[in-house]
Amino acid sequence: MRQQQQVVSPEVNADNSVTFRYMAPEASKVTVNGNFARGQELSKGENGIWSVTVGPLEPQLYTYSFSVDGITALDPNNVYTSRDVATVTNFFIVKGAKGSLGDLLSTGDVPHGTVSRLWYPSAFKNEERRVTVYLPPGYESGSQSYPVLYVLHGIGGDEEAWITQGRVAEQMDNLIATGRAVPMIVVMTNGNISQDAAPGYSKEGLVKPGMGLPNTMDGTFEQYFPEIMSYVEKTFRVKEGKANTAICGLSMGGFHTRAISANYPDRFDYVGLFSSALGTGSEDRAQSPTYQDMNAKIDRQFSNPPKVYWIAIGNEDFLFNANTEYREHLDSKGYKYEYLETGGGHTWANWRHYFSLFAPMCFK
Amino acid sequence: MRQQQQVVSPEVNADNSVTFRYMAPEASKVTVNGNFARGQELSKGENGIWSVTVGPLEPQLYTYSFSVDGITALDPNNVYTSRDVATVTNFFIVKGAKGSLGDLLSTGDVPHGTVSRLWYPSAFKNEERRVTVYLPPGYESGSQSYPVLYVLHGIGGDEEAWITQGRVAEQMDNLIATGRAVPMIVVMTNGNISQDAAPGYSKEGLVKPGMGLPNTMDGTFEQYFPEIMSYVEKTFRVKEGKANTAICGLSMGGFHTRAISANYPDRFDYVGLFSSALGTGSEDRAQSPTYQDMNAKIDRQFSNPPKVYWIAIGNEDFLFNANTEYREHLDSKGYKYEYLETGGGHTWANWRHYFSLFAPMCFK
Repeated sequence: MRQQQQVVSPEVNADNSVTFRYMAPEASKVTVNGNFARGQELSKGENGIWSVTVGPLEPQLYTYSFSVDGITALDPNNVYTSRDVATVTNFFIVKGAKGSLGDLLSTGDVPHGTVSRLWYPSAFKNEERRVTVYLPPGYESGSQSYPVLYVLHGIGGDEEAWITQGRVAEQMDNLIATGRAVPMIVVMTNGNISQDAAPGYSKEGLVKPGMGLPNTMDGTFEQYFPEIMSYVEKTFRVKEGKANTAICGLSMGGFHTRAISANYPDRFDYVGLFSSALGTGSEDRAQSPTYQDMNAKIDRQFSNPPKVYWIAIGNEDFLFNANTEYREHLDSKGYKYEYLETGGGHTWANWRHYFSLFAPMCFK
Repeated sequence: MRQQQQVVSPEVNADNSVTFRYMAPEASKVTVNGNFARGQELSKGENGIWSVTVGPLEPQLYTYSFSVDGITALDPNNVYTSRDVATVTNFFIVKGAKGSLGDLLSTGDVPHGTVSRLWYPSAFKNEERRVTVYLPPGYESGSQSYPVLYVLHGIGGDEEAWITQGRVAEQMDNLIATGRAVPMIVVMTNGNISQDAAPGYSKEGLVKPGMGLPNTMDGTFEQYFPEIMSYVEKTFRVKEGKANTAICGLSMGGFHTRAISANYPDRFDYVGLFSSALGTGSEDRAQSPTYQDMNAKIDRQFSNPPKVYWIAIGNEDFLFNANTEYREHLDSKGYKYEYLETGGGHTWANWRHYFSLFAPMCFK
C-alpha cells in the first residue's frame, strides 16, 4: 500500500491530456472507465506500473475507476471521490484556461463563501429536513441582504448533489470574484420529501441510496416548498420578492422547478430548467393539486412573466423530445423563454455547465 | 455492476456481528481488511458471492476494504467512505444499545445542529483559512449565546477530520438531546498553518494529502490561534471568557492544545489532551517563543487552574510513556488533572470515545 501510494495518478498534463497509473505487478489486464473513456486499456511498464494517457480533455470534472482483471478498484493515489446515487468513483478536474468551466469548478485563490448544512422544520411529517446553503463571501462580516437562488437536484440526488457533483461553492466563489455573477445566497434543497436528509445524514441510517423513493414526483415537494423559502427568509439576510428570487433544477429538479414557479407565479423572476423531466406522465399519475390546470397556471405565470425563463438540454438527452414539445407549447402561446441546446445527454457535465451560465443571468 | 449492487454488504446483524459480501465469481481469494480484522478470508458461496461474518463487534464506527486476488477494492454495496490522511476506505457503524458509543455516532431522531464551513482572515500569510463549525440545535431560530469548544486534529488531519472521522455533529446532537452535554458551539480548526484548507478545498488544488507539511509543529499555529477565537466571537453568539471556553485535541492537536492553553492561560477552563504528541522533541527543534519556558507557562496556567484538565491515552499508544512522564511532572508539582487510560493505541476508535466523554465535562 505504501509503495502503491507513491505512484502519481491521475496526472493532468500541460496539454490537458491525462495520464492514469496503477501498480499491479501480477495483473493481466487493467482498464480505466470514466465519463471520458470506457474500457480504455493501460499498458504494463517497469515495476509493474500500468499506465495510459487519454485526451486532451475539455476543461471539466471527470469521474473514473479502474478495472483490474475484472475487479472494480478506485485509484489508490487519488483520495478525491464522489458519490452519484449509489456509485462511488474517483474524480479529477482538467482546469484549463482562466475562465473556462474547469477553472470555475476548481477552488480559486479568491474570497470564499460559507457552506452550511442546516435543518428546517417541515410540516409534511413534522420533522426537520436538511438543506445546504451557500452564503457569498463577506456575508459573515457584513450586514447587507442578498438575493436567493434555489437549486434543485434530480432523481437519486439530494441536498449534497449540487454542492459535490455540481461544485456550486467553487463555481459561485469564482463567478462572484470575476464579476460574472452578483453575490447571492444559493439554497440546495432535498427534493426527496419522504427522506429527511441525504443518505448518510438521515435518521434512517447508513442506507443504500436508491432511485425509487415514495412521493418523489407526486406534487408533495412542490406543495411544501414555501416552508423552505420562509425558513431561508427568516434565517438569513435575504432580499425578498420576485426580482430577488431565482429557481433552477436538473431533471426531476427541472420538473419541480417548472411546477413550483407555475404554482407560485409571483415569486420567481429567474427560472431555469436543465434537462427537465417533462413528459413522463408523473403529473397524471399523481393527481395532485400541484399539477392540476398546469397550462392555466403557466398562462398565469406568463401574464406577468419572469425576467428569464431558461430551458437547456443536450441533443442526446432522452428527454430532448419532451422538452421540444414543451417549447412548442410555449411558442404556440407566444411566451418568451431563452433556450440553449448543447451536445451530450443527461449528464453532470452538462448540468455543471448549465449552472455556470444560469447563475450569471440572475438578478441583473 | 448492477448485479453487483444487489448484494447486501455490510450487514450488521442483531447480535452486532457483521456480515460482508462481495460478488466475484472468478476470484480465487477475497479478504476483508479493517480495524476489526486484518486479512479475514471470505468463503465463496452460490452465485459467486463471497461472504464472512465477523464479531460481534463493540458499538463503534469501523473502516474496511476488500482485497480481491490482491487488488484493493472498496465495497460496491456501501457508498459510505471516509478519508484518513491519504487512504479512502468504506465505513459502517455498529449502533448498539441506546446511549452506547455506536448510538452516539449514529444520526439520531433528535434535533440537529448546523454544520458550516467558513473562511476566516489570517494574518499569517494574509489569506483566508477554512474552519468547520457546529452550531447547536436552536441556534438559528434563537437569540441566546453559547460556550465554545475548540477541537484540534492530528498530523495528516485537517478541519474535516473531526467532523467526518470523529462524527462530532452526530455526537453533539445526541449528547445534547439526552442532556449529557450542554448546548455549545464546536469549532474544528485546521492546524496545518501552511495550507489554507483541507485537501480538496485548498487553492493548491486536488493534491495528494501528506504527513510532512511545513510549520506544523513549530509554534506558528498556536501563535495565530487567537485570530480564530476572535473570528468565532465576532461571527457567532458566543459566551466569552475562561468559564465558557474549552479546547481539546488528538495527537498533534493534543500537543497544540497543551501549548495553546499554557500560552493563553486565562482563556480555557476545560482542556483535553487525547493521545497527545508529547516528547517528540518538536519544541526544541522549533525554537519558537510558543514553547519557550513551557514549564513556567504551565506553572502560570495552574496558578489559576482550569476547572478540568483531562489527559486520555490508550495503553498501547506509542506516546504512552511520554504522556506518563508529563503526568509525573504535573504530579510532582501537585497540579490537578483527570486521567483516563483505555485499551488500544493511537486510533480514531479511541478519539471518538474520548470526545464523547470530554464534551459532556465542559461548562458544568
